[in-house]
Amino acid sequence: MGAKLLLDRKQQSDLFLLSQGAFAPLSGFQDSDAVNAVLDAGRLPDGQPWSIPIVLLADERPAADRVVLVDESGEAIGRLDVRSAYALDKQRYASAVFRTTDVKHPGVAWLLSAGKLALAGPVEADPEWVARYALEFDLPASPAETHAEIAARGWRTVVGFQTRNPIHRAHEFLIKIALESVDGLLLQPLVGETKPGDVPAEVRLDCYRALLDNYFVAGRTLLAALPAWMRYAGPREAIFHALVRRNYGCTHFIVGRDHAGVGSYYGPFDAQQIFSDYRDEELGIQPVFFDRVFYCRRCASMATPKTCPHPSDFHLELSGTQVRQMLGRGELPPPEFSRPEVAEILARHYAALELAGGVA
Amino acid sequence: MGAKLLLDRKQQSDLFLLSQGAFAPLSGFQDSDAVNAVLDAGRLPDGQPWSIPIVLLADERPAADRVVLVDESGEAIGRLDVRSAYALDKQRYASAVFRTTDVKHPGVAWLLSAGKLALAGPVEADPEWVARYALEFDLPASPAETHAEIAARGWRTVVGFQTRNPIHRAHEFLIKIALESVDGLLLQPLVGETKPGDVPAEVRLDCYRALLDNYFVAGRTLLAALPAWMRYAGPREAIFHALVRRNYGCTHFIVGRDHAGVGSYYGPFDAQQIFSDYRDEELGIQPVFFDRVFYCRRCASMATPKTCPHPSDFHLELSGTQVRQMLGRGELPPPEFSRPEVAEILARHYAALELAGGVA
Repeated sequence: MGAKLLLDRKQQSDLFLLSQGAFAPLSGFQDSDAVNAVLDAGRLPDGQPWSIPIVLLADERPAADRVVLVDESGEAIGRLDVRSAYALDKQRYASAVFRTTDVKHPGVAWLLSAGKLALAGPVEADPEWVARYALEFDLPASPAETHAEIAARGWRTVVGFQTRNPIHRAHEFLIKIALESVDGLLLQPLVGETKPGDVPAEVRLDCYRALLDNYFVAGRTLLAALPAWMRYAGPREAIFHALVRRNYGCTHFIVGRDHAGVGSYYGPFDAQQIFSDYRDEELGIQPVFFDRVFYCRRCASMATPKTCPHPSDFHLELSGTQVRQMLGRGELPPPEFSRPEVAEILARHYAALELAGGVA
Repeated sequence: MGAKLLLDRKQQSDLFLLSQGAFAPLSGFQDSDAVNAVLDAGRLPDGQPWSIPIVLLADERPAADRVVLVDESGEAIGRLDVRSAYALDKQRYASAVFRTTDVKHPGVAWLLSAGKLALAGPVEADPEWVARYALEFDLPASPAETHAEIAARGWRTVVGFQTRNPIHRAHEFLIKIALESVDGLLLQPLVGETKPGDVPAEVRLDCYRALLDNYFVAGRTLLAALPAWMRYAGPREAIFHALVRRNYGCTHFIVGRDHAGVGSYYGPFDAQQIFSDYRDEELGIQPVFFDRVFYCRRCASMATPKTCPHPSDFHLELSGTQVRQMLGRGELPPPEFSRPEVAEILARHYAALELAGGVA
């Protein structure tokens, strides 16, 4: 007895999600066979779809197999039953999951900086810690909570939307298109760790609430938190995000352009194409694909390359960088790009950053 | 030999569509058993979905069983092999198909004015007449033609849109939503007989072309004609329209509010609910349902009750009657309601009618 293992924020997130069924059918950190099956085939050894190995990387094997998991304050938050330990082949992991071994890729950087030894085995989380952890987000954060909310609303079909950014009109447009054919929306921003420069979760949550309150039908939306961390694994993470949303009760999942991408490691539609490796029935959720979305002055509406025939000089498209620069200068993006209620929240955030001397 | 039967315009349309496979699996006018199965169960005797009996009503049985079918000029256009003749129970037909026996219903009015004796049996159409008949519309009009066009475009998924009206922005919006998830659009206006007061097919075709040319992506649309006549049978006709579009090569079919309705004989969503009587696989086509569409000034976009939370004073909705009145006065409806390119064609049509003293 007495073996302890300190979990960092990412590992705490994995513990929470594993213990709550968000990563079902997984209930613990994966062993070598499972990891190899996922890396080679994008499936678990029994053939079920799974795209990102969930591994617990440590520097060394704990002194005992029953390990108490602790957080940075030293408090016990759960238990791990170490069934095996193995050296993870990080090059192989990176090549399969991130499609690159470039250390500038944030997922690769995480992998290389983590421990060498993978500890595998089932986990349990301390219920009080689970409650405290979920409370941080002040939103439904576990599959049990979203299932209850979905049941209370009587939705039979639910589309999930993953985001780590504020929602502008382009994404509002495609969410609303999806809402024409399903009963409800699970807007489930990722609130775990993202990369520096991303808008903090609490500011984004204010933006989401402003958007839902002003532009969506009450009773058709559910705002929840996904306390996962971003892997930036593009196509593999799109499958992962879809499977996780299935576990949270979604029947449909929106996959836009460059889902979970970073830099130019993935083609803009790689994260859609990968779905053809799986049947919808085995995923248990139906992907809903969208192309690039922009405002077209000639169409006088939001549009995509599938529906708008007009040349690009009619199109209003702003990059994330352009929007950050406008907001940093105290300018609001045009209402065709961003709802004023959302733009104002972001403007206040960037003004505060500016005062603190911190806009990139 | 020598038995002839004059077909009116509606019967010619049925002959064309039966002979071209547009009513597959039907290849002739239905006998009493088939009609009863359709009326009672919305299915053929073998269980396949079919919702509107295709009957040839005559005043008396022709002198021979091999009948030459002729048009109003007396020219032979095809042949009927009379296998049976029976008195059609028109009350039963009307109750099942039109859900009313009210003579003010245009479908009931047609039925009561038609002959009493139904002639059943396989038909053949004269190929030269078929070619001449199709040419009238100057558009693909048979399943063979649309299948060829769809194959040439390489579409795997095709959404069909049925209309007997000019297309304004509300319908453009829902067609474009459908186009986000399928490869192409078969815009297939019904060009057979409609009721008095409907905009004539040639004017509507000009409107469709103006809309497609100016607001749709070339290569994603196919304009074709459906030379069927309107039954105004609401829900039953929605199923019928879907089955016919399956035969023309569609994989999806848009069913909006009050599809194929007239007056207030049907609830606004009856034509969607009836699809739950059939599985998509047995229909061979997937319905795509839409709610009421309007422009919302607060959303600054087209919207539906599923996506817009704002009160109706923000909504721009005009009835067909209001639009006809505006156009009759020489006013164009606002661009949020109708594309100017379309409105101008309609304005010229109503101005010409006005000169002729004919606006209702």
